[in-house]
Amino acid sequence: MDIRKRKLAELAVRVGINVRENENVLVNASIDCAEIARLVVEEAYKAGAKQVIVKYRDELISRLHFLNQSDETLCEIPEYLVLENKYYCDNKFARISIVSPKAGIMDDVDPMKVQRQSIEANKKLSFAQEFVMGNNVPWTIIAAANPIWAKKVFPELEENEAVEKLWDAIYDASRVTMDNDCKADWDVHIKNLEKYFVKLNEYNFKSLLFKNSIGTDLEVGLVKNHLWAGGAEFTLDNHLYAPNIPTEEVFTMPDKYNVNGRVYSTKPLDFQGKLITDFYLDFKDGKVVNYDAKENKESLKALIEFDEGSCYLGEVALISHNTPISMSNILFYNTLFDENASCHLALGRAYPMNIKGGLEMSREELAKNNANLSMTHNDFMFGSADMSVKGVTYEGDIIDIFVNGNFVI
Amino acid sequence: MDIRKRKLAELAVRVGINVRENENVLVNASIDCAEIARLVVEEAYKAGAKQVIVKYRDELISRLHFLNQSDETLCEIPEYLVLENKYYCDNKFARISIVSPKAGIMDDVDPMKVQRQSIEANKKLSFAQEFVMGNNVPWTIIAAANPIWAKKVFPELEENEAVEKLWDAIYDASRVTMDNDCKADWDVHIKNLEKYFVKLNEYNFKSLLFKNSIGTDLEVGLVKNHLWAGGAEFTLDNHLYAPNIPTEEVFTMPDKYNVNGRVYSTKPLDFQGKLITDFYLDFKDGKVVNYDAKENKESLKALIEFDEGSCYLGEVALISHNTPISMSNILFYNTLFDENASCHLALGRAYPMNIKGGLEMSREELAKNNANLSMTHNDFMFGSADMSVKGVTYEGDIIDIFVNGNFVI
Repeated sequence: MDIRKRKLAELAVRVGINVRENENVLVNASIDCAEIARLVVEEAYKAGAKQVIVKYRDELISRLHFLNQSDETLCEIPEYLVLENKYYCDNKFARISIVSPKAGIMDDVDPMKVQRQSIEANKKLSFAQEFVMGNNVPWTIIAAANPIWAKKVFPELEENEAVEKLWDAIYDASRVTMDNDCKADWDVHIKNLEKYFVKLNEYNFKSLLFKNSIGTDLEVGLVKNHLWAGGAEFTLDNHLYAPNIPTEEVFTMPDKYNVNGRVYSTKPLDFQGKLITDFYLDFKDGKVVNYDAKENKESLKALIEFDEGSCYLGEVALISHNTPISMSNILFYNTLFDENASCHLALGRAYPMNIKGGLEMSREELAKNNANLSMTHNDFMFGSADMSVKGVTYEGDIIDIFVNGNFVI
Repeated sequence: MDIRKRKLAELAVRVGINVRENENVLVNASIDCAEIARLVVEEAYKAGAKQVIVKYRDELISRLHFLNQSDETLCEIPEYLVLENKYYCDNKFARISIVSPKAGIMDDVDPMKVQRQSIEANKKLSFAQEFVMGNNVPWTIIAAANPIWAKKVFPELEENEAVEKLWDAIYDASRVTMDNDCKADWDVHIKNLEKYFVKLNEYNFKSLLFKNSIGTDLEVGLVKNHLWAGGAEFTLDNHLYAPNIPTEEVFTMPDKYNVNGRVYSTKPLDFQGKLITDFYLDFKDGKVVNYDAKENKESLKALIEFDEGSCYLGEVALISHNTPISMSNILFYNTLFDENASCHLALGRAYPMNIKGGLEMSREELAKNNANLSMTHNDFMFGSADMSVKGVTYEGDIIDIFVNGNFVI
């Protein structure tokens, strides 16, 4: 076995959730990721975890459910699932997600059927997502290669070779090499990202202006008392963890009702197993009022119309065009990677930590501060090599943040 | 893909649980069995199932739990698991188990730790097993090959070759060939088994006498009004299903307190991931009073001492020595197969259907009829080529049932 696989597992445990003695850990993994899931479990116990529960999902079986079950059956969310999620929250399970995307496998499924199921499930289970996004527990995401994904990224290669090359790309992006001290390298990396968000916090911009040659011309207002973050975060009980492996972004909270202009996507978006390509969104007073896509417009519609908040922004993130993932020139067709190669926005829920005191605010207080409370959160990429980003201060000054796709601040 | 794999999946659905329109189905599968699990799901939906839930287990992760969790943590059975099992019972989920044994992987785990966890889990969850064993819903078991199992059965072969050969053996034993009509062949097979149990029911034996050259000399009393069964069974609502694929046995209910003598095992027994080999049991008035094993006596002890009923018998089954599985001369190291190559007994719970009116009896009534109500049920094999089985009638007549390992009745 590739030594980097165990190092990635260890990274998820020691840096990702930064597991504590006697902590409970929940691992969500695709069954294709069993090998790394087992390593994660081993490493978590080694690091002192009390109990590590693995929940496997099988996307091919999910597809069969959507193709064969009635809407009524799909939308019945049994009570035990609510209780199970409550158990994970009550017992403060740290979360590790192992994603292994299989874009395209849902192509023959009606996206509105997925949507209806997803809305019903969210009604009963979103409390758990809210709990996690509210930094009550440490959480992290890592990725594992699979043949479908590998062939999508490297269509010109044989399957085995493609899988190997995708693993290489995952390790590189995650700063895992055969012989590095991952933890030390990540500590340095996290410190670097901190420099940017500290500076951005000092500026305390009122809004950001995005412009590039393909037509993006967008002003994104930021909430008052917003906070930039990136790399590592703190839980409510002050425990440092790194929610994304890899991560290259600094991000903050847009003002839900103060976004205007047009934004063009620069990378396809994998949503519920379908790839939405070449799309744009028009915003007016924060809301998406018009949109189109080259492929899977129906899925984009589903994403936008998910709930009241899903047509408003919840996150704006800045990533230099010269970061390693971006420079690799690999299109991963997966948000965990592609969002770290490109400036991105998220439709849906905002992170409470992106506003001062947000983690202690009630839903009502967050809403009053123009934070998005949607049940969903979907990032999409719009950065480009020629992106210009300017910050507008409360004094009316305009400051260059990005010139030609890179930080200049 | 081997066409026999889909045929085996279809067999599980159409003969095994004989699924009904709009029925719920629960599939329990090892994650190594994903390929056939998906086929089972497909075939179940094709046959009209309403909802097919797959629960994957990962034995390698279970092993890590036992190696790393404290007894206290292992023995906490969360309430949601109880509710989940209740959900499957309330909604009458038919059950398909796909087993894929990995004998030996628990070798470094303390069997008493497994035992303690198992006892606690059973206290809270045995209602579900009781529900299924009480024929409230159709259930069936099929098997899938995996490399560990294959190398155990065919140690002299390369892994790939061993896996292929094990699949061949599974298909053969399950009466699945490239070109047969499995369902029709199974109908014939079930009719054949019926001939034996109808005859045995007519005799209405008081007890059975087992004797062979390696030292087995055992009298097994049968409960009054016992019923022999085999091949296919009926649920409480009169729906025919076949609980084991493969199956070659006819079986009935021993009298819990009327078993005397010694029995020698003739095949190793896989219990909680450990192989118990060359063991014997001495019975007095139904109870195991003495025992020994060449390997893993600790596990045998755990099995026998599980609860009040686990040191008494709950099933006695007759299988001719000339059945296909037996004639294949393959030692499967797995009960689903080996029990169908050899006469066997089970320590633990009896099947209520093996006594007249049993499915409608309360626990108290079953107990009054000397039925075993243990929370566990473990078959072990003791048949041999020279086995003699005689039946003792209430009139005192002694009738040959087996001579030299085969039915003569």
